[in-house]
Amino acid sequence: MRLSKTFVKTTKQAPADEVSKNAQLLIRAGFIYKEMAWVYAFLPFGWRVFNKIAKIIREEMDKIGGEEIHLTALQDPEVWKTTDRWSDQVVDVWFKTKLQSGKDLGLSFTHEEPLTRMMKKFIQSYKDLPAYPYQIQLKFRNEIRAKSGIMRAREFYMKDLYSFSKDKTQHDKFYEKIKQAYFNIFDRVGIGHLTYLTFASGGSFSKYSHEFQTLTEAGEDIIRIDEEKWIAINEEVLVDEVLQDLWIQKESLVPRKAVEVGNIFTLWDKFSRALGLTYKDKDGVDKYVFMGSYGIGLGRLMWTVAEVLSDDKWLVWPRAIAPYEFVIIPIGENASQRALEVYTALKKVFGNEIVLDDRAVSPGFKFKDADLIGYPYQIVISDKTLQQGPEVIEFITRATGQKQFLDIEHIQQIVSN
Amino acid sequence: MRLSKTFVKTTKQAPADEVSKNAQLLIRAGFIYKEMAWVYAFLPFGWRVFNKIAKIIREEMDKIGGEEIHLTALQDPEVWKTTDRWSDQVVDVWFKTKLQSGKDLGLSFTHEEPLTRMMKKFIQSYKDLPAYPYQIQLKFRNEIRAKSGIMRAREFYMKDLYSFSKDKTQHDKFYEKIKQAYFNIFDRVGIGHLTYLTFASGGSFSKYSHEFQTLTEAGEDIIRIDEEKWIAINEEVLVDEVLQDLWIQKESLVPRKAVEVGNIFTLWDKFSRALGLTYKDKDGVDKYVFMGSYGIGLGRLMWTVAEVLSDDKWLVWPRAIAPYEFVIIPIGENASQRALEVYTALKKVFGNEIVLDDRAVSPGFKFKDADLIGYPYQIVISDKTLQQGPEVIEFITRATGQKQFLDIEHIQQIVSN
Repeated sequence: MRLSKTFVKTTKQAPADEVSKNAQLLIRAGFIYKEMAWVYAFLPFGWRVFNKIAKIIREEMDKIGGEEIHLTALQDPEVWKTTDRWSDQVVDVWFKTKLQSGKDLGLSFTHEEPLTRMMKKFIQSYKDLPAYPYQIQLKFRNEIRAKSGIMRAREFYMKDLYSFSKDKTQHDKFYEKIKQAYFNIFDRVGIGHLTYLTFASGGSFSKYSHEFQTLTEAGEDIIRIDEEKWIAINEEVLVDEVLQDLWIQKESLVPRKAVEVGNIFTLWDKFSRALGLTYKDKDGVDKYVFMGSYGIGLGRLMWTVAEVLSDDKWLVWPRAIAPYEFVIIPIGENASQRALEVYTALKKVFGNEIVLDDRAVSPGFKFKDADLIGYPYQIVISDKTLQQGPEVIEFITRATGQKQFLDIEHIQQIVSN
Repeated sequence: MRLSKTFVKTTKQAPADEVSKNAQLLIRAGFIYKEMAWVYAFLPFGWRVFNKIAKIIREEMDKIGGEEIHLTALQDPEVWKTTDRWSDQVVDVWFKTKLQSGKDLGLSFTHEEPLTRMMKKFIQSYKDLPAYPYQIQLKFRNEIRAKSGIMRAREFYMKDLYSFSKDKTQHDKFYEKIKQAYFNIFDRVGIGHLTYLTFASGGSFSKYSHEFQTLTEAGEDIIRIDEEKWIAINEEVLVDEVLQDLWIQKESLVPRKAVEVGNIFTLWDKFSRALGLTYKDKDGVDKYVFMGSYGIGLGRLMWTVAEVLSDDKWLVWPRAIAPYEFVIIPIGENASQRALEVYTALKKVFGNEIVLDDRAVSPGFKFKDADLIGYPYQIVISDKTLQQGPEVIEFITRATGQKQFLDIEHIQQIVSN
């Protein structure tokens, strides 16, 4: 991509009401745009990051048997009344609207009810189980609680997978698999080393639910981590019974600020019972389907990576989810022709992952933008490098600041290490 | 994909209130699910078709300089008031909702206003033009008009690109490019041979706008086509002046039923003037940005392909947007092991485009499903084929019904023709 062709520009200032580092950086770098309070649009670079995160999540969900579907944003009140969740007293984050006929509709704040109803069409027998539909779709939540820290949004994309199992045994097997898939996702987007499986209250559903919490000072939660066992517990379950369950000594726990980047719930038969989702078992008996739900907010994950991996020079993306992996910065008149050649050559090897900063702006401006945007690798072509030979470039690794003069041919070896 | 692993089943009947062939077929084949009137969810096979269409559209938009973004579904009334389009008297398809504070919000029925406002952040100089942001995002339209024919939806994905140009000359150049890109898209999804560039009224914007209309008896529009010139005009512009403009003889026009699958509009400075989107030209003078908008409804396109390419046996997908390209149907006990081997071998060549129908159902059931779902190619492995040698399969082309016995090795040659 030639930077002279994109309409997006970085800006010096983020809106005054954005206090968190992640929001400020992402807005300043031109990844997102604030439409109104807590409602954000994605600009081209941000949308590329979003889609790379989505691809990783899809791969990990598909690997464990997930099947991607796409439910609707508009919601039928009837199905929500069966679980009593249509009421604004019970669910205080609904956005509601109306058909011209006057009939009420909701906007999806989650999808358990419509999906459970839909699955009645497809699940009749134990042979139809298990089933693992998932989607990456908009959720709307009419939040009033203002929080600092990681950006919040009233409209956001969530990956939500729902498991439909015969019984707890079949459920538990999958539950362990998706735990691992979640760890894979957080590893691949670059925050695995900061992310803890965290025991939280199961609410009305279960003894525990599990959250995935990423350590950051911008976090809104306090978790207590056991570094050796690599697990954590939420304050709400910090009681002797739980500590015993998990074989954890209270003294080994360290309190840390963290942000929730994913959660997994055992739902038992709460929804299948309310909506009458049953299957005929081998023994001919009708039983309720055993359900679970598993969420990851894609925006939240992106903001979190931006927050925890950034440095004082601003954004730092891991290669797997960078908007582009390389930026080529030509300095001086002789460099631009050579830069174009290098750009063309690298595109052949790395595909559409190269940015050529061919804008008519100063080198200092280009370097600042490259640092702010956080490309993993900067390739500088200047009179200085050309003097050392036409193949020589300066290669800067954004995360470490390491600078090397090297032959263009060697890039592939270096970045694949 | 092993069919025994998917939760989706075909059904014998579509909902009684779905009268159109495309709706009935897509629901029966398990591509879409009716959540409520005019609100449809995508099931795994339908979502794959959707994403293949989206990929083709993205490729064609990127090729002409489009940059993908993602605007918000929630809409700020303030920006719509500047063009007087917040009023329900002016726009009668709004879905509206409220923040908990009581403030009104809209749901995006289109995106001209918020995008034009956003572009003020990025466009200051003639050097910043042209710009071609586009998105594939939800639109919500509170329709009351019941229509038969091609399925309608109150919530649907649209690709909308907006062009921002210095002047009409720069605009016109792009307008011709995107016309061609649209023809490419309709060709690639398999309906190019039925799709006409159609002159329609430009409304308040322009002398003409252009629609792309696909011939089908299920269509709601009547267009008059000139087959030789491969253009058409809408009834609303069937006047002498227009015929003269287009060098068309009234006698050569044939009325045909058609459905609109895309439209392109010249917007002039309507939105840039209302919202104050100006740029400083070379001569130092502030001028209004010249805009255009270009839409394709992705669901509508999918329903149209389903409608016009289907036959009496049901769906027929062109290879480019088929949910999967091949289905392998093993018949008899000896066949299942061999079918699994062929499945594994073909996946290596064609990727995740192969379905193995390994369900414990009758051959007749499998054939009916394969015809209904409309895979482009059916591969039958049976005692009959195995008798002729382990490499022999029966190869059925869905669109033509042609059956051939051939060596598995030859598939690649045949399908690449």
